[in-house]
Amino acid sequence: MVTSNANKAREVAAFFGGLLEVTHVALDLPEHRSEDVGEIAQGKARFAYGQLNAPLIVDDTGFSIDALAGFPGPYAAYVQKSIGNAGILKLMEGKSDRTARFTTAIAYADATGVRVFPGTLEGQIAHNPRGDGGFGYDPIFEIGGTTLAEIPMEEKSRMSHRARALAAFQDWFLQEHAAGQSK
Amino acid sequence: MVTSNANKAREVAAFFGGLLEVTHVALDLPEHRSEDVGEIAQGKARFAYGQLNAPLIVDDTGFSIDALAGFPGPYAAYVQKSIGNAGILKLMEGKSDRTARFTTAIAYADATGVRVFPGTLEGQIAHNPRGDGGFGYDPIFEIGGTTLAEIPMEEKSRMSHRARALAAFQDWFLQEHAAGQSK
Repeated sequence: MVTSNANKAREVAAFFGGLLEVTHVALDLPEHRSEDVGEIAQGKARFAYGQLNAPLIVDDTGFSIDALAGFPGPYAAYVQKSIGNAGILKLMEGKSDRTARFTTAIAYADATGVRVFPGTLEGQIAHNPRGDGGFGYDPIFEIGGTTLAEIPMEEKSRMSHRARALAAFQDWFLQEHAAGQSK
Repeated sequence: MVTSNANKAREVAAFFGGLLEVTHVALDLPEHRSEDVGEIAQGKARFAYGQLNAPLIVDDTGFSIDALAGFPGPYAAYVQKSIGNAGILKLMEGKSDRTARFTTAIAYADATGVRVFPGTLEGQIAHNPRGDGGFGYDPIFEIGGTTLAEIPMEEKSRMSHRARALAAFQDWFLQEHAAGQSK
């Protein structure tokens, strides 16, 4: 797992729960500007593989609000840091469509190339922030009336966009690996 | 001038007014994600030089609002396309500090490396959009009470952040070139 974020690497290692062995490589990856997290993850994976020459995964996450034409999109981290949830709620005043989604793309690179596995979590922008858990957009993103910041961490980790992308990758990887072993 | 935007190349050629000969090379440059337009321009110039192996300039422009912690910063184009000026004005409701600035960085690359020349235009976020000229943030960006969209194109071109960056580059380039000739 190539990331500058040690917590993220730990979370990913925990997800695989020993089924796959994951090592954390702390490398700051240049990110190409794109509005597609899959494309961003793919670019980062290609760059990292050029540096490391070993099978690896990287990820990229975006947050997209339908009524704001997809804003903040791939710039979710920057927008959170600048205008924050207060800014998002201000922009959403008077909007009836409050649909939003997180998307994580996991990109896997090896000698044969790069493959991208997306994972999505759809919900609604709340009218007010709620909950003490989570971080970033969690207090204003609700699913079935509950914000992500009100959901226990463990449950959140199981249902998250990142978990869904990791699961898609894991399914594919284990199948490939089994196929390789049976040859 | 390496850009996918033919209008920009024409504007730059017009700026130099025959003093420097500028050719337009239409190349779509990958942009590294950074919050510093100088860094972004530098990355693009380095990439373009790797492709073209000839002296070249590229530019990158950001728009930064103090009361919004610099937002939209380098993502000015994306933010304009998604939440637009209406979104900016909503975010600025009730803010007394309305200071904002455009920054263009011109990066020049040749065999000796890359040099960056910034140009800045400081103003205020208007309370309502005004003016029919210009594009993007021009109708909500005012200097001395007049928005950029109310200023004639020719005058705007002379005073713009891009003109200031180009002037800084030109001064340096002509001096270097004169020094080279006198040897």
